[in-house]
Amino acid sequence: MPEKRPVRLSPDERRAQLVAIGVDMLADCSLDELSTDDVARRAGISRGLLFHYFDSKRDFYRCVVRQECDDFAAATEPDPSLEPVPWLRAFIAGFAAYVTEHRKVYLALVRGASGSHPAVEDIVESTRATLARRAEEGQRRLGMPDSPRLLAAARAWMAFAEEAVINWPPDGPDAPAELGAFLESSFIRLLGALDRPAVLPG
Amino acid sequence: MPEKRPVRLSPDERRAQLVAIGVDMLADCSLDELSTDDVARRAGISRGLLFHYFDSKRDFYRCVVRQECDDFAAATEPDPSLEPVPWLRAFIAGFAAYVTEHRKVYLALVRGASGSHPAVEDIVESTRATLARRAEEGQRRLGMPDSPRLLAAARAWMAFAEEAVINWPPDGPDAPAELGAFLESSFIRLLGALDRPAVLPG
Repeated sequence: MPEKRPVRLSPDERRAQLVAIGVDMLADCSLDELSTDDVARRAGISRGLLFHYFDSKRDFYRCVVRQECDDFAAATEPDPSLEPVPWLRAFIAGFAAYVTEHRKVYLALVRGASGSHPAVEDIVESTRATLARRAEEGQRRLGMPDSPRLLAAARAWMAFAEEAVINWPPDGPDAPAELGAFLESSFIRLLGALDRPAVLPG
Repeated sequence: MPEKRPVRLSPDERRAQLVAIGVDMLADCSLDELSTDDVARRAGISRGLLFHYFDSKRDFYRCVVRQECDDFAAATEPDPSLEPVPWLRAFIAGFAAYVTEHRKVYLALVRGASGSHPAVEDIVESTRATLARRAEEGQRRLGMPDSPRLLAAARAWMAFAEEAVINWPPDGPDAPAELGAFLESSFIRLLGALDRPAVLPG
């Protein structure tokens, strides 16, 4: 059997490889459980060499989470040249697909942000803010009435959408389309009439 | 100076006192940081005696979180004899007041449930389910149209409401009333028309 020889990578490639392994492993463990020993082993390098590329465990964790969050932000960014309605639909579809596919990482990192991983809280919070600004942008593109509460409402709608995607029953081939329609309706109803209250009967 | 003498309490009283101290301390630390040494000290008993009342640290944590969750459920339970509209308003006001007052505990426990504290996950999840059933009950009491997606929508609305309360700017004496009206409007819009989609212009 030939001896396992580490593949020769440039520093940037090696760094990207280690981060990608971390992102991949995060699907099956929490950030606290992510072992740099295991990451190094999977890359075929020593743990010492891993710390040649990252200052500390915390630095490595932050790079992994930043990568995950950058991927999430990219997946939910529609083509800016789209018309308002297709733009909104692309945003919603991108969001639903990403959260569905990365369900476990999403639950551990984004939703469970508060109180859980102080080392990455700022990165996750800034990603939440990016998503809320995107919902705001969709609202504006559609020409819906403005409100001093738009940002709070956009953030709350993101929480609504995240909970809906996480709990949506995966029953049948129409589930993703039905979920998309449900989120779109909620967007219109919640962010489309912020200038006036809804009235209850009685 | 007279020697500090532990107050004589019945086992049930002592147990309740220790849990109450734990709940109180949880406002300023995470569950993992909650020290049974500190709890015992504040109660004026030894750490050993604390473990006479609780099987383990985990058991104590679970009792503390169950108490917090029971308080939350009680604070959001309207008088069942109320008419539908006052019932909904009592539910929303109770929810908003509790989350506002227990903001830090709420963030650490309820919102950050997934991935953070496996020891209490089932208690928190069952509380989330109770709240969602309450939102469902409000929807039914108001005679709003039924939908196979009502439960998913009710859970998502609870996430919306929680995010809105957490981010609501505390500006001026009208903030709580304005928040209540905002949540009520969102409830009507989101859960009041689940039988039909909202339509976008264009």
